[in-house]
This record gives sequence, structure tokens and C-alpha cells, in this order.
Amino acid sequence: MPAILVLNGPNLNLLGTREPATYGSATLADVERLCAERARERGFTLDFRQSNHEGVLVDAIHEAGRGFQAGGVAGVVINAGAYTHTSIALHDAVRAVEVPVIEVHISNVHARESFRHHSWLSPVAAGVIVGLGIDGYLLAIDALARRHAAR
Amino acid sequence: MPAILVLNGPNLNLLGTREPATYGSATLADVERLCAERARERGFTLDFRQSNHEGVLVDAIHEAGRGFQAGGVAGVVINAGAYTHTSIALHDAVRAVEVPVIEVHISNVHARESFRHHSWLSPVAAGVIVGLGIDGYLLAIDALARRHAAR
Amino acid sequence: MPAILVLNGPNLNLLGTREPATYGSATLADVERLCAERARERGFTLDFRQSNHEGVLVDAIHEAGRGFQAGGVAGVVINAGAYTHTSIALHDAVRAVEVPVIEVHISNVHARESFRHHSWLSPVAAGVIVGLGIDGYLLAIDALARRHAAR
Amino acid sequence: MPAILVLNGPNLNLLGTREPATYGSATLADVERLCAERARERGFTLDFRQSNHEGVLVDAIHEAGRGFQAGGVAGVVINAGAYTHTSIALHDAVRAVEVPVIEVHISNVHARESFRHHSWLSPVAAGVIVGLGIDGYLLAIDALARRHAAR
Amino acid sequence: MPAILVLNGPNLNLLGTREPATYGSATLADVERLCAERARERGFTLDFRQSNHEGVLVDAIHEAGRGFQAGGVAGVVINAGAYTHTSIALHDAVRAVEVPVIEVHISNVHARESFRHHSWLSPVAAGVIVGLGIDGYLLAIDALARRHAAR
Amino acid sequence: MPAILVLNGPNLNLLGTREPATYGSATLADVERLCAERARERGFTLDFRQSNHEGVLVDAIHEAGRGFQAGGVAGVVINAGAYTHTSIALHDAVRAVEVPVIEVHISNVHARESFRHHSWLSPVAAGVIVGLGIDGYLLAIDALARRHAAR
Amino acid sequence: MPAILVLNGPNLNLLGTREPATYGSATLADVERLCAERARERGFTLDFRQSNHEGVLVDAIHEAGRGFQAGGVAGVVINAGAYTHTSIALHDAVRAVEVPVIEVHISNVHARESFRHHSWLSPVAAGVIVGLGIDGYLLAIDALARRHAAR
Amino acid sequence: MPAILVLNGPNLNLLGTREPATYGSATLADVERLCAERARERGFTLDFRQSNHEGVLVDAIHEAGRGFQAGGVAGVVINAGAYTHTSIALHDAVRAVEVPVIEVHISNVHARESFRHHSWLSPVAAGVIVGLGIDGYLLAIDALARRHAAR
Amino acid sequence: MPAILVLNGPNLNLLGTREPATYGSATLADVERLCAERARERGFTLDFRQSNHEGVLVDAIHEAGRGFQAGGVAGVVINAGAYTHTSIALHDAVRAVEVPVIEVHISNVHARESFRHHSWLSPVAAGVIVGLGIDGYLLAIDALARRHAAR
Amino acid sequence: MPAILVLNGPNLNLLGTREPATYGSATLADVERLCAERARERGFTLDFRQSNHEGVLVDAIHEAGRGFQAGGVAGVVINAGAYTHTSIALHDAVRAVEVPVIEVHISNVHARESFRHHSWLSPVAAGVIVGLGIDGYLLAIDALARRHAAR
Amino acid sequence: MPAILVLNGPNLNLLGTREPATYGSATLADVERLCAERARERGFTLDFRQSNHEGVLVDAIHEAGRGFQAGGVAGVVINAGAYTHTSIALHDAVRAVEVPVIEVHISNVHARESFRHHSWLSPVAAGVIVGLGIDGYLLAIDALARRHAAR
Amino acid sequence: MPAILVLNGPNLNLLGTREPATYGSATLADVERLCAERARERGFTLDFRQSNHEGVLVDAIHEAGRGFQAGGVAGVVINAGAYTHTSIALHDAVRAVEVPVIEVHISNVHARESFRHHSWLSPVAAGVIVGLGIDGYLLAIDALARRHAAR
Repeated sequence: MPAILVLNGPNLNLLGTREPATYGSATLADVERLCAERARERGFTLDFRQSNHEGVLVDAIHEAGRGFQAGGVAGVVINAGAYTHTSIALHDAVRAVEVPVIEVHISNVHARESFRHHSWLSPVAAGVIVGLGIDGYLLAIDALARRHAAR
Repeated sequence: MPAILVLNGPNLNLLGTREPATYGSATLADVERLCAERARERGFTLDFRQSNHEGVLVDAIHEAGRGFQAGGVAGVVINAGAYTHTSIALHDAVRAVEVPVIEVHISNVHARESFRHHSWLSPVAAGVIVGLGIDGYLLAIDALARRHAAR
Repeated sequence: MPAILVLNGPNLNLLGTREPATYGSATLADVERLCAERARERGFTLDFRQSNHEGVLVDAIHEAGRGFQAGGVAGVVINAGAYTHTSIALHDAVRAVEVPVIEVHISNVHARESFRHHSWLSPVAAGVIVGLGIDGYLLAIDALARRHAAR
Repeated sequence: MPAILVLNGPNLNLLGTREPATYGSATLADVERLCAERARERGFTLDFRQSNHEGVLVDAIHEAGRGFQAGGVAGVVINAGAYTHTSIALHDAVRAVEVPVIEVHISNVHARESFRHHSWLSPVAAGVIVGLGIDGYLLAIDALARRHAAR
Repeated sequence: MPAILVLNGPNLNLLGTREPATYGSATLADVERLCAERARERGFTLDFRQSNHEGVLVDAIHEAGRGFQAGGVAGVVINAGAYTHTSIALHDAVRAVEVPVIEVHISNVHARESFRHHSWLSPVAAGVIVGLGIDGYLLAIDALARRHAAR
Repeated sequence: MPAILVLNGPNLNLLGTREPATYGSATLADVERLCAERARERGFTLDFRQSNHEGVLVDAIHEAGRGFQAGGVAGVVINAGAYTHTSIALHDAVRAVEVPVIEVHISNVHARESFRHHSWLSPVAAGVIVGLGIDGYLLAIDALARRHAAR
Repeated sequence: MPAILVLNGPNLNLLGTREPATYGSATLADVERLCAERARERGFTLDFRQSNHEGVLVDAIHEAGRGFQAGGVAGVVINAGAYTHTSIALHDAVRAVEVPVIEVHISNVHARESFRHHSWLSPVAAGVIVGLGIDGYLLAIDALARRHAAR
Repeated sequence: MPAILVLNGPNLNLLGTREPATYGSATLADVERLCAERARERGFTLDFRQSNHEGVLVDAIHEAGRGFQAGGVAGVVINAGAYTHTSIALHDAVRAVEVPVIEVHISNVHARESFRHHSWLSPVAAGVIVGLGIDGYLLAIDALARRHAAR
Repeated sequence: MPAILVLNGPNLNLLGTREPATYGSATLADVERLCAERARERGFTLDFRQSNHEGVLVDAIHEAGRGFQAGGVAGVVINAGAYTHTSIALHDAVRAVEVPVIEVHISNVHARESFRHHSWLSPVAAGVIVGLGIDGYLLAIDALARRHAAR
Repeated sequence: MPAILVLNGPNLNLLGTREPATYGSATLADVERLCAERARERGFTLDFRQSNHEGVLVDAIHEAGRGFQAGGVAGVVINAGAYTHTSIALHDAVRAVEVPVIEVHISNVHARESFRHHSWLSPVAAGVIVGLGIDGYLLAIDALARRHAAR
Repeated sequence: MPAILVLNGPNLNLLGTREPATYGSATLADVERLCAERARERGFTLDFRQSNHEGVLVDAIHEAGRGFQAGGVAGVVINAGAYTHTSIALHDAVRAVEVPVIEVHISNVHARESFRHHSWLSPVAAGVIVGLGIDGYLLAIDALARRHAAR
Repeated sequence: MPAILVLNGPNLNLLGTREPATYGSATLADVERLCAERARERGFTLDFRQSNHEGVLVDAIHEAGRGFQAGGVAGVVINAGAYTHTSIALHDAVRAVEVPVIEVHISNVHARESFRHHSWLSPVAAGVIVGLGIDGYLLAIDALARRHAAR
């Protein structure tokens, strides 16, 4: 079974306690559990990670790229948190690999501060899902599954 | 069975012939058929429309708002085409109604001209799905279904 | 008795239910009734319209322009809603006719989002009344009455 | 009888001689006379002032704020002249008091140089009346009267 | 004989009475007569329309696109009036069809207000003719004729 | 027979070899031949020049201005190449003379880099023809001929 | 004992009643009392002033500059209110004198409207203390005391 | 003998001690003496003032305007200091009077910070002299003298 | 005794040798010693760290947030160095925790390059102290102490 | 007798016929005659030139620089016409030489189009005189004379 | 033999497989081999590193700074990849050390997306070499060698 | 032996005397000598030119383009001085020819005024070398030599 990598960026480890009015009360462990379940239903294993370090996220994208070449990785779901808005390094990493990457945001970033409206990932992502809460992760797994089936 | 309104804006009637490298070769009739099937699977009827007239789209949002109040409409999927980028009237219409509205774009607008990066709908939408092709419509129906079930 | 045209733009048909904290709880029918009364007191008939279609508003301005030339129309009160901020077509229409046009906004647009601060109508209007609620319509009728008397 | 304060900013003492094509030929004394008459008709006394000093205008707003608290002042009509476009001090003063303040401009500032399009007063004013000539002062007194009656 | 579609946007129905110093004193009927004559000389029929509705103009472009595919339409001359500066829907419509579209402006838009300097049509038009008065329509017909002959 | 001056700016001497996908394969000598023919048909002699020197182009505009005063020059067709976008000196030169100057661009500058969208010549030109290839020169000569006939 | 001048700008006389959620409920008299106490503890007399007049503030800075030269003034604490954001005259005054000037803001101006983010005083101040409430005045006195001791 | 008013704005009272590398070591009294001498040579009396208060400068312009109407004032030389860059009130005052006003700056403001490059006075001044030190005042008096002689 | 965390960002390990004209000659060890002394006087232990890694700083903020919840941490003093100007991740981290965070800068960032004028931390900090040298750290500890006492 | 170089840029050869409402009716020969007279009175010879070529103006500045080193040139008066606003080459030339250069403009460039408000020469000029007509040239010669005398 | 540090930023580990049309087909190991050879020829050892972590690059610059002080390091060649465009931390690190740092880019960043045109390193680098492919690294080593020889 | 053209733009003839702190004390003759030596070592003749005229530089690029086609020219090294920042004509010239052009700047333009940060040549150059002094010319010759060898 190929894997789906779900990659979470800075401050997502605080999910559930951080601004619940914006991000909801589910924790990152809850998200992992739901993703694992959905991945299993779609025939994938799940590799779920979180880091506050930009370089770690770049390394993980590269690793997924190699995994995709080798057939062990089907796709990446990324919620890059604040690095969404500042990291050209992540932009370049996603662009440099062939594995499909779907960008997800729990909250509706377009309804928040203007500095959250621009994403360095969107132009190189295979798709973007915004504002649908944790459901966005699951829809992204669905989309990767269909994409994997269509290869 | 409550309805889901799928609303298509200007030039989407040309789908399939218009810049297929960007928008794919499926026609709007194909999209309608797939949406109808998915809606049925999720327990909804489908109301599928297209117009090149901004005012007609505003009227339709109002109508869906009334339908939602009356219990006959579960949600709206909107691909507003070019009006996405220019219509504050549509922004105000979506904001004025309570029916959930999910914004969909077939192509990855963030990978195209900069004038397609800003959406007047996004800040008032319940969610946004971009760049996943026609699959985006189906994921939006799924999301509305879950949202309807959770009410 | 010459007429005063009161022209309402997109989403104003929802007045009373749309964001009452911003727009108040009076409906557009209430506004029409108050305007009709005030117009009668000042010696005018009232022509009160609403449309979500930009082209319909342009057509109406042209019609009022012809009415003014023929002596049947004394002036126009316009609350163009969202088209205030996007319609150069309405700007050109008002500029192209001789009938005096007074722009009205119920809410204080300058205390809201920055995209509501610019009006394409203001530079070509005979005057602008902002933020005084429904009273703004009545003050505009008063101003047109005095202007009509001064011709 | 409560008072209405009409406050005029820099260069308005030159009214009647300054650019008559823009501002008309009535003098500030004419404006005062018309305002006094209208105030009397509506049941108010008039306190009419002009100053070229920003600090004097701020002081006057504070004084009106105290008067409003004490019940002796019903509202303020302000034509802040050039300070409209540069004075955050006046913005803060109006925001800091509870007395309703209506902003008036004789000429249509939106039809003139772009630096006259932004007003620091508008977002904190109870309303704005632009381009209706001296009639704007009288309409503002009418609006304050109605507002006073509605308290 | 194939047709040339001449499409006129908002407020062009007022030609001859609207700001004659800018647009001249010829009416739209005059323009139609001259275009018909020139089209006939070049071996085309003329389809001459005007609308204040953005959606109607989009519909007409689509119709011309189908006509071009079918061999009945040779090209489009468009003076989109104010929609030139605001309509991405028209931009997308012109881009989506294969029929050659030449943009015409009677007045020299580059010598007027800065908001008239940008055209959403120009980047997708087959050519642009500005400031040559009504003669611009005739030169555009000539250019379409040469283009038609060269196919 | 009065003359028409056709003035070509920097790099136009490379026409035919320079980016043929953009500018076509005709050489400047071809353009001169076609212009001479068209000028003759319309009753003019042709004065056809090219220079890479801004000052030489300014001098030529002045010379044409004097020729126009003396009756020997009917008009100027100018393709100022890159100086279109940088030369206020040429703007001032065209504005300072009475001879009509029509600006021509072979390629559709509005479909290219944004720095080619602004022209210092357009606001002072008698007209602008863009994107119609070499045909633009001939249409400009036609327009000058009609203008000359109408004097 | 040398003096410390504490200078308060426009609307600070309203402290305690003006937007208490932002500025707290202490009055300016409270601030003066606390500053006097702290100054005394540090070995200074206190000169505490407030004015709504920009010119008065400039005059006071000059006076403090002369006092510093003469040895009678140790430093200035300034909360320039709205003039912080608009007064180049105050910028020049602070720059022109040698007395150290510390800028204080009670509220966190960087968490409020963007027009409060820029200060004309900061680049010429000896230091800036923001958002620590009335405590900011006391910390500024401490800092001036240490600076005075270090001379 | 008619008078020339020399008006100095904020911080110019510190001339000679304020940033001598920029403004030189002459004091404002030195400037007054040199101006008085030059005025006398040209047949004028001198009225030399300085204020840190914007309103006082506006009042003085108005006074000079009345003096010019009455024949007692020949012109104004103004160095408005920092108000040059912030005061629309002074812009409006100069525009409202007929007396010729020449703007002077001792230092070369264009070689300093960018916020000193824009002057609200320049567009309404009769002329501007920048960077020539105190000599600029004297050249301005010369220019006013020639202008007075030419009336 | 609760702890105060003092967090230093990139390049602050070079303090004392890096641009001493800007940052002074004290080393980071000197700063640590002074902070420890002040913390002890105020009844706190000191946790003093430096890192050139953005992720390490985010992790440390999270750790302090947990410490604050558990009662072991009283507050954070942060000098985030260059990450002040680029790190939305740090902005989000500070916003996500409840521990009070005071931002300190040794040099007056507002007197330096414009890219140092914007801080991503300021809008979410409990306060900001700028330009007072190493004394800023000590004043921040004082402020946290008073804040801790007031809980 | 040392020389003063008066250097005139593009289109100034048309003085007297070019937009006389803006530039007056005196010709460049008139200006030369007046300058020669004034130079003679001040003890200088005059070297008066005009060119439409940017390179020629740069060459002339260099020549004056060498003349100044050799003692034969006292200063330069330059009216660079349109190159004022576009020529960094002239900026660099003036900066590279030691001869004092005074910039002159006949019209008040600050009262005209915004693209005439910025001068590449001003920051490197010894002074700037704007809007005083031809008198500006003479005042500049006076200023250079005083400067020469003060060496 | 002193060392030259060659420092490679994010995604450069993918060289040879990442967008070969832009970056070529040589791998980072190839670059290292060529650099080692060139360094040896010029009399240096080579220290060649790559990291996707901003903090690691900052640390390495500091280490090279200490090496330069100690005489063991002659210079740094840096290709900071995406951090070129986002890292003020790297800017500050390079500025804080004395070792000469030459910035290299394999591709011509100025011919690519506009966000690659600005480099935070360039203003503090000893030099910049762009667009010459891998040869840029070798030329940078040559330049450091000449610089080292000239000390 | 093929030639290398070294092309120098405006003010570079002043090298050695012009701002030596920025540009060094070597003269252009020194540069020519060093370039000739290096070219000879690499097997090329040298064609070394300088001009203050934009058109002359454009002409020279064209000439080198023809020489490259004919095999007599191997490449161009250009230091376009101020035209780097203003000349789209040079941009177009370099783009229009096939001969490789390497852009060189003696000083580090990115450490100077912001108007020197943008180069019109860079996006069309084969490479860019900045800030390495005269050595930049020699490195550019080396790079052209390697490029020539690789053909």
C-alpha cells in the first residue's frame, strides 16, 4: 500500500487549544486519526508529521519526492501554517518534485488578515482546499486517491 | 430531498472547447451529469445553471437563500468565472444569505495571471476548492452533504 | 407633477433581513413608502425601482435623462449598492445625462471595508449623502426639490 | 433650547471670495444666517465658529462633547476644510466624544484633486453630506434634529 | 457574404448627445450607416448592435465565435465602452473564441482619465485602434477584410 | 504632393530577423516599399526613416512640424520602438508641433510585458493603431489621408 | 533638581473617559501623580503638560532643548497622540534639540489601525515604549534617569 | 513703500544652532537683517515673521492677501519648514489669495529624505527656489520686485 | 520562583563584535548577567537562550506557553533579531500562547533601514521597547514583574 | 573672464511657439540675449547651447567639469527639459563633476502633470529655481556669480 | 592552505534532477568536484556544504567569520537558493562578519519570476555573479583568490 | 582571432576621477589595457569603446550581432552605466541579437541607491557580474572565452 504524507507546519501542534474560534477544538491527534481512517478506506497508509522548522518541511517534501519516484508515496497533503505565506523554499521544493501536493487550510484564510491571502504554495500545488475545517484534509486524501487511481 | 444549486458564471458554457489545455475537454453537460450523479448518491436533487449575466447570478443566490430558509436548498456550489474577480455584488449577495456557498475553480487560478488570484467570493464563502478540475465540483457537493448532515 | 426616480442597486431587495446591524430592520417597501410620502409633500410623484442588473440601472439612468429633457423627471436618487464600487458604466451614464443625480448610502461606507470607500458615482453626482440611514433618501429628495425649485 | 455647533475649518473665513466657481459667492456670514434660521425652526440655538487652527477645532469638539453629556448640545456640523484630509487629531477627537458629528463639504470633493477624496472624519462621523453647496449645512441640521427627536 | 459584427457597449446609444466635445456629434445610427457602407464595399454584411448589459455582450461574442466556426462571420469590431475597463468576463469571452476581434475607441482614451488607460480587451484582441473617431470603425472593417482575404 | 513622414525608432532596422514570431519576417525595406505604394495611391510622397537615437527622432518631429506649417508635410506615422515607453522628450516634441502624429505598433504591445503597456506618445498622438502588423502603417497612412482631405 | 518634561498631545486630556477598553480608566491627573512620584524617587522634578495644539508641543520641545543646554532639564517623555502620525514639525523639533526624548504610547499602536503604525517621532527619539499602559511613562522616566546618571 | 512679508515656519527659530551642516550657521536674525537690506534696496519695507503654529501661518497668508488687495503688500516669501510637506491648509490659503507667494528652502530638500521631496506649496506658489542657502530669500525678494515692477 | 525566558534570535550571539556603533560593545554574556541580576532582584529565575533557527524560537515560545499554564513561567522577553521582520510563524506562536511576551530591540530600528520598521511580533506582543540599548531588556523584566504582581 | 554655460535640453529650441500659455512667447534667442547681458554685468562670458540629444548634454557637462578644473568655467545653468525626468545619465554626469550646476525650469513643473514633479537633477544640483519664467535663468546666473565670488 | 567555504541553500541538493531546463543536468556532486579542482589550482582547500535549514546557513556564515579572523578561511561562495529572497537573517549574518562573501546564482534570476529579482544578500556581498551556470562558482573562487592575494 | 567587444556607457570616460571611493582610481585606459591583456591570453582581439550616447550603444550592439553572425565577434562585455537603469532600447537590442552579452558593474549597485537596483539588461544578458571592481571585466572575458570554446 502506497503512503500519503500529511505534513503540518508551525503552530499546528497547538491545534485544539490555539484560537479555537478560528481553528476548532479538535487536536492534531484527532486530525491524524481521521486522516488515517480515510487513508485506509482509500487504500493508503498514512505518514503524518508536524514541524515548526521550515527546513524539516523542505526535507520532508524531498523525501516524498523520492518516495513517489520509487512508487511508495502517492501524494502529499500539506498545511504549511505560517510558512504558507513566507517560504519560497517550500515553493521551490514542491516545484522540484513530481509527487502531487494538495494544500489545505482549516480556516478560511481569505476571511482573515490580508497577509494570509497570499500563498507561496498555491501556484505550484496540484490543488488547494480552504476553509472547510478538518474536512479539508479528508477531501484532499480523496482527491489524491482519485488522482492515484487515474495514473 | 433538498436541492444543491450548482451555479456557473460567464464563459463556462464554452467548457470543453475553451482553452482545453487549461480547462480540460469535458463539457458543461458532462459536469452537470457528474454532479447530478454525486448529488443523488448524497441524497440531494441538483439544480444546475449557467449564465453570462452578473445580475442573473445575484438573483440565483437570493433564490437559494430563500430556499435555504424554507428548507428546500442545502447549499450552493459556485464557479463564478470572471465575476469571481470583479463582482462585489456577488460578494454582497453571498454575505447576505445564510445558505452555505462553496467556491470552486476548475483550473489552478493561482498558477495563472495575477488578476485571477483575488476572489471577491472567497472571504464570504464557506470554503474554496481550487485546481482539482471537475473533481472540485464533486468534492464541494461532498462537503455540503457533510455540512447538511451536521446541522 | 414631475417625478423623482429612486434607483436601488444589487442586494437592496434584501433590506431588512440583510445584516440588520449594518442596514437596519426597515425593508425596501418601508423605504419606498417613506420616499413616496416625502416626494408627495414636496410636490413630486415617485418612481421607485430596484435591480440586481448593472445594465438595467444604466438603462434607467438613460430613461431619466430623457425624462428630464422632456420635463417629466426632476431628479434621481441612487443607491447603487455594490455597483457603486465597480461600475464605470454607471459613472459614464450619470455623466452623459443632465438630470441631477444624488448618491445615497444607508450605512457609513467609510467606516467599513476599504473597498467600499471609493465610489465611481461620487465624482459625477450632484451630491452625496452617506451614513444617515434611510433618512438619507429623504434628505436627497429634499435637496432635489430645492434644486428643482431653483431652476 | 439645546445648541447645535457648526464648526468651520481653515480658509472658510474666505468664503465668497475664494474660488467662487468652486465654493459659490455666499460668505460665511451668509451661511451663519441661514444656519441660525434653520436651527431656530428646528428648535435649537446655533453656535457658529471658524478657525484656521487645528488645535482650536479639537478643543471645540471636546467642548461639544462635554455639552452633549450635560444636555446643552444636540450635535455638531463640521466642515473641517483642509484638516479633513490631514488631521488624525480631529479623527480621534470625534471618536472620543459621544455627541453626533455630521461632516459637510460645500463642493463635491470627489470631483476635485485626489488628495481631497480621503477624509479622516468620515469613518467616525455620524454621516457625511458632500457637494450640495450651503444646502448641505441645512440638511445636516435637519438630520441632527431628527436624531435629537429620536433619542 | 459573411458578416462582420460591430458590437457597441454601454452608453454608446447616447452617441451624438453625450459629451460631443469628446465623442463628436455623429449618432450611433450614423456610425451604423457608415459601417454598413464600408462593409458592403469590402464584401460583407453588417450585424450592428448596442447593449448596456455586460452579459449581452458576452453572449454576442460567443454567438460570433460559433458563426466564425460555421463560416458565416468574418470578424468582430468592438467598442465596449466602460466595460473595456472593468470586464474580465469580456476578456475571457474574446480569448475563448477564434473569431478575430478588433477593439476600437472613438476618443483617445490615453488622453483622458487614467482609469480609461487600461483595457481588459487589448491583450486578447487581434488589434486596437484608438482616437481616430468614427474612422476607427471603418479602418477596423478594412483590417478584418484584409485578414479575411488572407485566410 | 505633400509628404508623409514614417519614423521608426530603435531596433526596427532589425525587422525581419528580430524575434520573427513577434514581429513577422518582413524587413523594414519591405515596410518602406508598401508604405510608399500606399502613400502614392493616396496622393503623398513618402519620407521613411529609422534611427536608434532618441535625439534624431525628436529632431525629425520638429522638422515635420515646420514642414506642416509650410504645407509640405501632411502627417507623421511613428513607431518609436522602445522609446515609446521611456521618452518624455518625444512626448513633448509631439505635443509641441501641430502636425498630426499617428502611433503604430506592429505587435500587440498589450499582450506582452507590462512595461510595454504604457506609451508616452499615446496621450499626445492623433491616434494609435496596435497589433495589426505591418498593415497598421498602411491604415495610419489612410487615416492621415482622410484627415488631410478634411482640412 | 533637574526636571523631566512629560508632554501629552491631542485628546490625552480625555484619558479615562475616551475608549477605556483601549486606554484604560486612569485619568491624565492619575498619570501626572504617578509620574511625579516616580520622578521624585529618581531625583527629578516633574513638568507635566498637555495640549491639543501642534505648535504648542513644538514650542515645548524647544523650551526643553534650551533647558537641557542650561542644565535644568534632564529629558522629555512624549506621548504625542495623533500628531505622532502626522507631524513632521515635531520630528524636526526633536531632531533639532539635544535633550533626550523618549516616545511613549499607552495602547499597543501596532495592534490597531495601520495609520497608527508609523511614527514621525520614532526615528529621532532616544527610545520608544509601546503598549505597556501607563507603566510606559514610568519606565521612560527610569530610562531617562539612568541616562542622566551615565552622562 | 509696499511691504514684502517673509514668513518662516516651524523650527526655523532654531536656525544657526539646528544641524549647521545642513542649514548653515547664520541665525534667523541674520536672515532678517539681510532680507531687510535687500528689500530696502528694491524699494520695499520688510515684514519678517516666524511661527511654529500652522494656524498662525494660515492667518498671515490671509492678512497678506488682504494687504495685496489694498496695495500695501507686494508679495510673500515663505519657508514653511515641515508644514511644507504636511499642510493642505497652507496650500489652500496660498491658492485662495492673489498675492504672489515664492517658496524658499535653505537646504536642497531633494538631496535629503524622500518625505521632504513633496511640497504642498509648490503647485500653488508663483515660484520655488531650493538649495541656494540664505541667498534664496534674497533672490526671491528680487523676483518679487521684478514682478511688482511689471504689474 | 517563576522563570522569565529571555529569547534572542539570529546573529545576537555576535553581540559585542557585530557593528558596535549600532549595537554597543557588550556581549550577549554581559546581557545575560545583567538580566539574571535584575530577574533575581524582582524575584524570578532567568532562562536565557539564543538561536539562529526560526523553528527553535517557535518551539521555545510554545514551551514558555506551557510553562505559563503550569505556573512556572512569568513572561517572555524576546529580541527576535531579523526574524522580527520576516517570521509570521513567530507571530502565530506568540498569538497562540497566553504568556505575556515583550519585544525588545537594542538599536532604534526606526532610525535604520525601512525593512526594519515593520515587526511581525509587535501586534501580538504585550509591549514593545525599542532603542534603549541593553537597558531595554531590564525594563522589560521590570514590566513583566509588575504584570506578574498584578495578576 | 570665466564662462557660464547655459545648457538647454530637448524641445527648448521651440520656445516661443511651443505652448505659449505655459512657456511664454519669448524665443530661445531672446533668452540667450538676456543671459548674455546678465552674464556680462556679473563679469562672465556666456556659452549658450541647446540640444535634443541626451548624450550631447552629458558631453557638455563633462566639458564644463574640465573647464571648471582649468578655471575657465564658473558654473552651469541647466534646463534639461524632458530629460530632467528620465535621465540618470545626466544625474551621474552632474554628480561626477565639481562645477556648480543650477537647475532651472521656466514653468512651474509642480503645477503640471505628476511625471514632471520628479527631477533626476535636483538631488545633485547646487540649487533649483522653478516657475519664475525666463527670470529663473537670470537669478541662476546671479547665484553662480555670488558663489564664484565666494570661492 | 586556507579554505574556501562554498555554501548551498535549499533545494540545491536536487541539482541535476530539478528543472534541468533552468538549472542544467550537473549534480551538486559535480559542482563540488569542479570547485575542489579550481580551489586546489588557486591554492585553497574546499569546504562544500548544502542545507535546507536557514539557521544552519547562518551558523555556517558565523563559523566562516571566525575562521577568517583566525586566518583559516579565505572567503565564502554562497548560493542561498530561495533564502536569497526571504532571509534578512542571512543578510545580517553576512554583514556581521568580515570574511568576503560572493553570491552566486546558476540561473539568470532576473529572467525569471519577479520575486527572484530581489536578493537580501546582494547589498552586503562582496560581489554577485548571476546566470553563468556552474561556471559562476568557479569565477567566484577566482575572484576570492585574487582578493586573498591582494590582502 | 575573433574579437570581444567591451562597451562602456555614460560617464565611464570619467573613471578614475569620478567618485573614487565608489569606482576606484583606475582610469578607463587602465581598464582597456587589462582587458586587452586578458583577451589576448584567451585568444581574442579586443574592441573597447565608450559613449555617452544611448543610440551609439544600440548601434554597437547591432554591429556586434552582425559580427557574431559572420564569425568575427565572440561576445560582448557591457557596462552600460546609467542606461542600465533607463534604456529599454538597449534591452531590446541585446534581445534582438544572438551574440552573448555579459553585463558588468564595477561597484555593487545593490548596495547603492534603489534606482540602481533594477537593470533593463539583466533579463536579456547571458550573465551578470556585479561589485567585483575592474576584475569583473576580466571574469566576463573569461566566461565568454569558455562559452566560445564550448560552441
